[in-house]
Amino acid sequence: MIVGVLGAGQLGRMLGLAAAPLGIATRFYDDANATSPAACIGPVTAGKFDDFAALDRFASGCDVITYEFENVPVAAAEHLAKSKPVWPPPGALRVAQDRVVEKSFFRDLGAAVPGFAPIDNATDLTRAIEQLDTPAILKTRRLGYDGKGQTTVRTPADAPAALAKLTGEAAGAPTGRPADLILEAFVGFVRELSIIAVRGQDGAMVFYPVTQNWHQHGILAESMAPAAGMLPGVQDAAEAIARRAMESLGYVGVLAIELFEVVNQRLVVNEMAPRVHNSGHWTIEGAVTSQFENHMRAVVGLPLGSTAPIGRSLMLNAIGEMPDAAAVLRVPNAHLHDYGKAARPGRKVGHVTVRREDYEGLLAVLEHLRPIVPFTVEA
Amino acid sequence: MIVGVLGAGQLGRMLGLAAAPLGIATRFYDDANATSPAACIGPVTAGKFDDFAALDRFASGCDVITYEFENVPVAAAEHLAKSKPVWPPPGALRVAQDRVVEKSFFRDLGAAVPGFAPIDNATDLTRAIEQLDTPAILKTRRLGYDGKGQTTVRTPADAPAALAKLTGEAAGAPTGRPADLILEAFVGFVRELSIIAVRGQDGAMVFYPVTQNWHQHGILAESMAPAAGMLPGVQDAAEAIARRAMESLGYVGVLAIELFEVVNQRLVVNEMAPRVHNSGHWTIEGAVTSQFENHMRAVVGLPLGSTAPIGRSLMLNAIGEMPDAAAVLRVPNAHLHDYGKAARPGRKVGHVTVRREDYEGLLAVLEHLRPIVPFTVEA
Repeated sequence: MIVGVLGAGQLGRMLGLAAAPLGIATRFYDDANATSPAACIGPVTAGKFDDFAALDRFASGCDVITYEFENVPVAAAEHLAKSKPVWPPPGALRVAQDRVVEKSFFRDLGAAVPGFAPIDNATDLTRAIEQLDTPAILKTRRLGYDGKGQTTVRTPADAPAALAKLTGEAAGAPTGRPADLILEAFVGFVRELSIIAVRGQDGAMVFYPVTQNWHQHGILAESMAPAAGMLPGVQDAAEAIARRAMESLGYVGVLAIELFEVVNQRLVVNEMAPRVHNSGHWTIEGAVTSQFENHMRAVVGLPLGSTAPIGRSLMLNAIGEMPDAAAVLRVPNAHLHDYGKAARPGRKVGHVTVRREDYEGLLAVLEHLRPIVPFTVEA
Repeated sequence: MIVGVLGAGQLGRMLGLAAAPLGIATRFYDDANATSPAACIGPVTAGKFDDFAALDRFASGCDVITYEFENVPVAAAEHLAKSKPVWPPPGALRVAQDRVVEKSFFRDLGAAVPGFAPIDNATDLTRAIEQLDTPAILKTRRLGYDGKGQTTVRTPADAPAALAKLTGEAAGAPTGRPADLILEAFVGFVRELSIIAVRGQDGAMVFYPVTQNWHQHGILAESMAPAAGMLPGVQDAAEAIARRAMESLGYVGVLAIELFEVVNQRLVVNEMAPRVHNSGHWTIEGAVTSQFENHMRAVVGLPLGSTAPIGRSLMLNAIGEMPDAAAVLRVPNAHLHDYGKAARPGRKVGHVTVRREDYEGLLAVLEHLRPIVPFTVEA
């Protein structure tokens, strides 16, 4: 069985490493020129995502197509789906790639979402600020990641500058084309959570324990799982949202949903990623079956594996540069993941996972690891 | 960091898969012509082990050299050691490749070994049978594996036929060259155990829990770890043997020692393997750090990882052909390892590991898995 993966970054690398023991070979397709993290585990074809002939040649050597980043053009996924199974379904990309469509999708499923309004011009923004109040966050509808493509509107007076920043045009200048933005109401959250869910081709669904996440500069810094101090109802509520989303989309594979926990342990959907997710990296050592293996099982039609946690896990991203390997590995039960990427500020180049039996142990090791694991975002 | 591995079989494949997350790339050198299991994780150079020029070219692209099978010619390892670090040390190959040297080595360390005598001709055999009694086992001193190159001498009358079988010469025919055999006294063991030990470049040593093994037709069929019902003294005794062996050899990497447990929980050394070992495959899911990762950590000079078990593990080898993947993966907590090899009777083509919290659960799943996982040795 050969699975073709669109994208050849670290998620592709970890998918390929998880697939190999199952006898599943992986091939990758990416438009990047640099050495790809996934190249260690399968051949990487360089090509554009609008080059359908090249995509067809790639797909002809694969049994199934999947992807490891959510900005795969929907047209490319739909084209490939004419000749090969493509999982997750291209419709999931369509939802995930547009923040307005995404929020509407979850709202229509009955999930709570932040107040939002599509913004195409200054008039829209003025009206939306009146409706949603400030502070609010102005974001591009598409292609934002790791905190890029967004800015905070603290007061109504910030609006022109915020609009100019995201459209790249001078504040107040007339503009002929829609700005393609979204204003989102600020959510006063208690904490950030995520749920990683998996659906098989037979419709079976499994859910990992809800993970607690901490972002810095818009980039995931740390995850802890299972999230501490959660009432049972929170896990159930998160699973219910994921279940409805996956069933609605006819989903196959791993789906990640980022959530805000607000007062009274209520959940508000922030966004979804139709792929394996950084907040699920802890599952490699911290769960019976990793998110990577379960994604591959799902897309080739194998039974899904147990998502039960093994103890408590803490994941720290290495941002900008790798930590000293020996310093990390001297920490009991620490596991190092080096993606084989060149160092660059703000770039996810690796991660560290540590397991302990209890949270007290994890918090102690966190204090020890934070100074060791780089988080470098300044150029 | 690039590690060159001599041999490109399933052990090389699992070493490479364990190395990648540490940022360690692997390259392989093998004299086999067929597609290599390790090829999925690193380039495989085809070459002979007596082609020192080819070995030198291979080594020039590597920082460290290790090996995944113990029949690497000592001369090849010693040659490579002139230009690159070679771990485990070539001296360990010398001990492991000759059953007489190996048994003498452990006897000299103070470990119990089966009675043995080198056999070069019929006279030696007659004398050894008088000394060691029957039943006894006649083996080739070199290159035996998986039950090959050995035959049982049930009574003194079997001696001529046994000698003829292993020398390939007609019983009673005169022979001019030494037969290069060993007669080993039969050990009435209670069970077969093994210990997987690791020594780092700084001399630090770690030991996995002693594993219980079951062989069929001379091939490892099943392993369970930690071995059930062991007195604490057995683990200590096994570690003491491994510790003395590794210190004596200036060892770096994983060393496996197969043991017989005889009456009163005494241990008798059967043989050693200076490499990762089939009876340690359970450590991939069943221990905090796998034998494969710890071997790679050792040979590149990183700190060793915890060998603590995670629950109880059972490993079943798939012999001859792979099981149905879906049938295996429907078993809760079952993990499949497909080496990507063509089916052939008697061949190790994969393995299955299952974890449970207790032995009762493991035994129940064993009954379920045995009919699913092939053990085909007949042609």
